[in-house]
Amino acid sequence: MRRFGIALAGLAAILAAEACATREAGAGSDTTNASPIYGVTIPAGYRGWELIAPALEADPLNELRAVVGNSVAIEAYRAGTPPFPDGTVLVKLAWRRAQSPEFEPASVPGAATTVQVMVKDSKKYAATGGWGFGRFVDGKPVDEAQHQTCFACHEARVRRHDYVFTRLAP
Amino acid sequence: MRRFGIALAGLAAILAAEACATREAGAGSDTTNASPIYGVTIPAGYRGWELIAPALEADPLNELRAVVGNSVAIEAYRAGTPPFPDGTVLVKLAWRRAQSPEFEPASVPGAATTVQVMVKDSKKYAATGGWGFGRFVDGKPVDEAQHQTCFACHEARVRRHDYVFTRLAP
Repeated sequence: MRRFGIALAGLAAILAAEACATREAGAGSDTTNASPIYGVTIPAGYRGWELIAPALEADPLNELRAVVGNSVAIEAYRAGTPPFPDGTVLVKLAWRRAQSPEFEPASVPGAATTVQVMVKDSKKYAATGGWGFGRFVDGKPVDEAQHQTCFACHEARVRRHDYVFTRLAP
Repeated sequence: MRRFGIALAGLAAILAAEACATREAGAGSDTTNASPIYGVTIPAGYRGWELIAPALEADPLNELRAVVGNSVAIEAYRAGTPPFPDGTVLVKLAWRRAQSPEFEPASVPGAATTVQVMVKDSKKYAATGGWGFGRFVDGKPVDEAQHQTCFACHEARVRRHDYVFTRLAP
């Protein structure tokens, strides 16, 4: 009976972990809209992922932004030391900066503009620091020319932070 | 055998739900640092809650902010219609706005400043629209005078949105 109880608890724990993982990852990725060069897609369920940090981008974009990450990303951020492990996925949401109609000093999200994704796979993306990039507007990837600019900028500016700009907000 | 399988699946589902809920809520609230007037505490585990929206607050505060919510809050936002149900908890994180050292157009979170909490309990907080408020600096509630300003401002400006400023970012 005791052994059965332990086996049951073990199974339940596995199923519990699966349930959480499913809730986190969503029902699967949209593979029909993969980014050029990298084949990165918008991960299902990312809107429920944990916040890493908000940001503001000045004119001409004038956007409010928020970067969220999957559980691999969050654990790596908490551990505090790059490089990020394979399986890390970061998603940056961006919105037009809008004036709050209810509180003068506040800017709030207006229309959504882009969703930007970074996926760590050190083998698949060995030529670009281990990262694959995707930039999406209305769920569709932007063109190849725009995707060619991703790594160059990340390499030039944040190579020492494993090519990732965003830090975990305290 | 089949009945056993169903019972097992049922148990696993309950345990899975518990595991997710525990992960969401954390290990419990810090009841030793409750806000004056309302007795609101910082909810454990809120840093992992789902993002509702980022915001920018202009000078003199000059802060980047992000509002996150528990699962009751998120479901209510998705449903789209105030009032929020009892059990809704909203947490606003705020940071000094800092210049990104790596990308000139970007502002990023600097030092954390305040954590602000709204808890919906229509009976307990009947006198303040059903909401209890807590404003915390370094984990400690600010004084009673500051807490007396919370509801007056929310009532004056966003009464028609169940006293909540923040909308779900698209």
